[in-house]
Amino acid sequence: MTALPDPLLDRLAAVVGARHVLTGSADSAPYLNEPRGLFAGVARAVVRPGSTDEVAAVVRLCGETATPIVPQGGNTGLVGGQIPDRSGRELVLSTARLDRIREVDLDTQTMICEAGVTLKRAQDAAAAVGRLFPLSLAAEGTATIGGNLATNAGGTQVIAYGTARDLVLGLEVVLADGRIWRGLRKLRKDNTGYDLRHLFIGAEGTLGIITAAVLKLFPAPRSIETALVGVASPQAALALLGLVRAHAGAAVTTFEVMARICLDFVLAHIPGSRDPLAGTHSWYVLLEVSSPDPGGLRDVLEHLLAEAHGGSLIEDAVIADSLAARAALWRLRETVPEAQKPEGASIKHDVSVPLTAAPAFIAEASAAVEAVVPGSRVVPFGHLGDGNIHFNVSQPVGADTAAFLARWEEMNAAVHAVVARHKGSISAEHGIGRLKRALLPGVKDAVELDLMHAVKRALDPGGLFNPGKVL
Amino acid sequence: MTALPDPLLDRLAAVVGARHVLTGSADSAPYLNEPRGLFAGVARAVVRPGSTDEVAAVVRLCGETATPIVPQGGNTGLVGGQIPDRSGRELVLSTARLDRIREVDLDTQTMICEAGVTLKRAQDAAAAVGRLFPLSLAAEGTATIGGNLATNAGGTQVIAYGTARDLVLGLEVVLADGRIWRGLRKLRKDNTGYDLRHLFIGAEGTLGIITAAVLKLFPAPRSIETALVGVASPQAALALLGLVRAHAGAAVTTFEVMARICLDFVLAHIPGSRDPLAGTHSWYVLLEVSSPDPGGLRDVLEHLLAEAHGGSLIEDAVIADSLAARAALWRLRETVPEAQKPEGASIKHDVSVPLTAAPAFIAEASAAVEAVVPGSRVVPFGHLGDGNIHFNVSQPVGADTAAFLARWEEMNAAVHAVVARHKGSISAEHGIGRLKRALLPGVKDAVELDLMHAVKRALDPGGLFNPGKVL
Repeated sequence: MTALPDPLLDRLAAVVGARHVLTGSADSAPYLNEPRGLFAGVARAVVRPGSTDEVAAVVRLCGETATPIVPQGGNTGLVGGQIPDRSGRELVLSTARLDRIREVDLDTQTMICEAGVTLKRAQDAAAAVGRLFPLSLAAEGTATIGGNLATNAGGTQVIAYGTARDLVLGLEVVLADGRIWRGLRKLRKDNTGYDLRHLFIGAEGTLGIITAAVLKLFPAPRSIETALVGVASPQAALALLGLVRAHAGAAVTTFEVMARICLDFVLAHIPGSRDPLAGTHSWYVLLEVSSPDPGGLRDVLEHLLAEAHGGSLIEDAVIADSLAARAALWRLRETVPEAQKPEGASIKHDVSVPLTAAPAFIAEASAAVEAVVPGSRVVPFGHLGDGNIHFNVSQPVGADTAAFLARWEEMNAAVHAVVARHKGSISAEHGIGRLKRALLPGVKDAVELDLMHAVKRALDPGGLFNPGKVL
Repeated sequence: MTALPDPLLDRLAAVVGARHVLTGSADSAPYLNEPRGLFAGVARAVVRPGSTDEVAAVVRLCGETATPIVPQGGNTGLVGGQIPDRSGRELVLSTARLDRIREVDLDTQTMICEAGVTLKRAQDAAAAVGRLFPLSLAAEGTATIGGNLATNAGGTQVIAYGTARDLVLGLEVVLADGRIWRGLRKLRKDNTGYDLRHLFIGAEGTLGIITAAVLKLFPAPRSIETALVGVASPQAALALLGLVRAHAGAAVTTFEVMARICLDFVLAHIPGSRDPLAGTHSWYVLLEVSSPDPGGLRDVLEHLLAEAHGGSLIEDAVIADSLAARAALWRLRETVPEAQKPEGASIKHDVSVPLTAAPAFIAEASAAVEAVVPGSRVVPFGHLGDGNIHFNVSQPVGADTAAFLARWEEMNAAVHAVVARHKGSISAEHGIGRLKRALLPGVKDAVELDLMHAVKRALDPGGLFNPGKVL
């Protein structure tokens, strides 16, 4: 069977060049499947515009032909927001070629990155001029600034610097009518009308296509102290957080936790990993304090850990005494998801609760999981400083993988019920995408959903952008 | 002449109680005129609901009768956003009776304030539990949380804590259809759909009426060091800012500047003020560093001021050595607007530019002002750390006040042209209101204005909320 010629593709090719309109399955495959294999789609084509003007021209063509557009950055999203449906009607618009760092401006402590710049390149560009771009997350080598902003990415330094939305001064966005909102402002304060930035940030490509952003730079830390702390419980971890904040305030740049089972998995499956503490502890805190001032934090950290130990708040602690030791501590935390894989299938929850509800949430959600699939292994870790727990559940030892995964929705429901009881969020940092779209009406009241629909209709009346995602 | 009976007023009285529907001119006057006397309006009535439900009922009544609503907090706004027009058709909805602090939650470091709580009361409630609510501005004794959020207020600690929008986790808002969006969430991270908070914050009451908010609390500083520094120029002040940030990072909580003429006015007109520095300097920086840790900042500050002096970056400096001395330094900065009054009329500009453009802006705008009214005295001060200058212009000595004020728009235009050249904002923190509404089309491109109108139509299709303001 030969496919009928598609006149839209010729017109797209005239805009972006024929070699940037991908239709062959080998070329398209990387854009139609996501890393975990949960979502796979079919696209009319994958188009790779090379400039904001080309994005706008593509959007206009799609508007004329009522062709839905799925914007895609580095294709690292975990909720399927960047993957087309299986109709073959949708166009994937990859921002990969919008990969210029247009400017690094030390005067205003900003840089302008196009959407397709990877987070790692943005970080490196900041570091090259002695500055910090603090957004930091596991997929940073592949994830792009555009995707980070569209999903309001979080990561490991939110406690000090906020989520992606807090790091943006201005945006350039292609709108549903094909016009370009040129909002690349560098102002720290600007009260001239509605703040449109925050509408597009976190909207997962449903309201417009972010093509570039003015990002904030920060002084590079010149002193960083990192500790791994063994504690008896999430409660103890929270008490430690209170103590650390009281002493170090804004210098607390990371406060991650993981249960012992996370460390067990890492020690079992990640080559070269070793337990830096002599004893065994139920929970671990990866704690980092940093400052642009070169001195003084080591004393602060030692002092407060001693105080915490004296008060029986913590069981043991080690402070990294070299860059290599620091990297080793970080690897223990960062390789948890990878170390989970050899343990079989896992059902994941990216949830947040008000900070102090985290211990109760973990206890209650663990019981709920056990009730659904007895023997399930709860592998909780994450950003306790933000109330954000990656509540992952590995299958029971020796269980049937398919049978375990068949309980996905049931287990989600059980965990999300606990989240709801604590007034939490079922998507702290990954977004809604397609994975959680059906859950949204259950967690939002009708008024808020109506507001979101009203905004969607106002900005994308034709439903051109990422249909079937979020709303 | 006797006014005809107004059936709406009876229905409003049935909702809020007759004594909270004000129509007499003596009762209404405080709500119809603003402190500077620039705007005075006429209202069908001033209504003072006592709860969110009452606000919603009032909005529904106004919807049914197509009665426009002007929301009002503490009536301290500087752009006329809170004052009705002169038609007598509009209802002023005062949030003054929504004055409960519903909760102070140390566990989650939040508090829930209703819209009519004054900023000072919110600050005090935080201080009473050893925490900081960092929003701080001259009108804080009268200004309310609702107004602060509706205008995205700024003030003197933005450099460390952000503007009002950065201090909010959740909102409760009465919508144009009279429904209530109950969005009082306490989550630090929540990526479940569009961020609606930031639409209502800064919208100046044109999209909904904020009735309550979840506000972030911070550790109370236990060490605060305050310095007044004499420098030769705005450039030198900026260089000092760079040095201070490099040493103290997030501990820099205030970085205000004022030109010598500001200090001259204060010394001349504010009883009890005295110049704490021996010599005379062209510019002054009021610098504060603070930390929740009780020790160490004095050394940091002395060290960096010594380094700055050694490098000829600064001319002289004094560090406050008591609470009284600190208060005296702050008074020099805070009384500038008051000290301007005896010097005659002034034409004001609340502008921001990218940080490093501030010196050029001040020089060029000063020349522009001199060209419009020779002999005008430029009295610039403000939040240099945010690029926000209050570019006030006092009339020439001995000039005719009315003749000077007649040049208001012409002088605005001249200053705003310089702002535009530096890609700045004509309203850094006061908003648009009625004062700058006519200027908005000149500073926003058509695409952005269209987006704002689309959002307005989506959320307030009947144009019920604050017509004639912002858009």
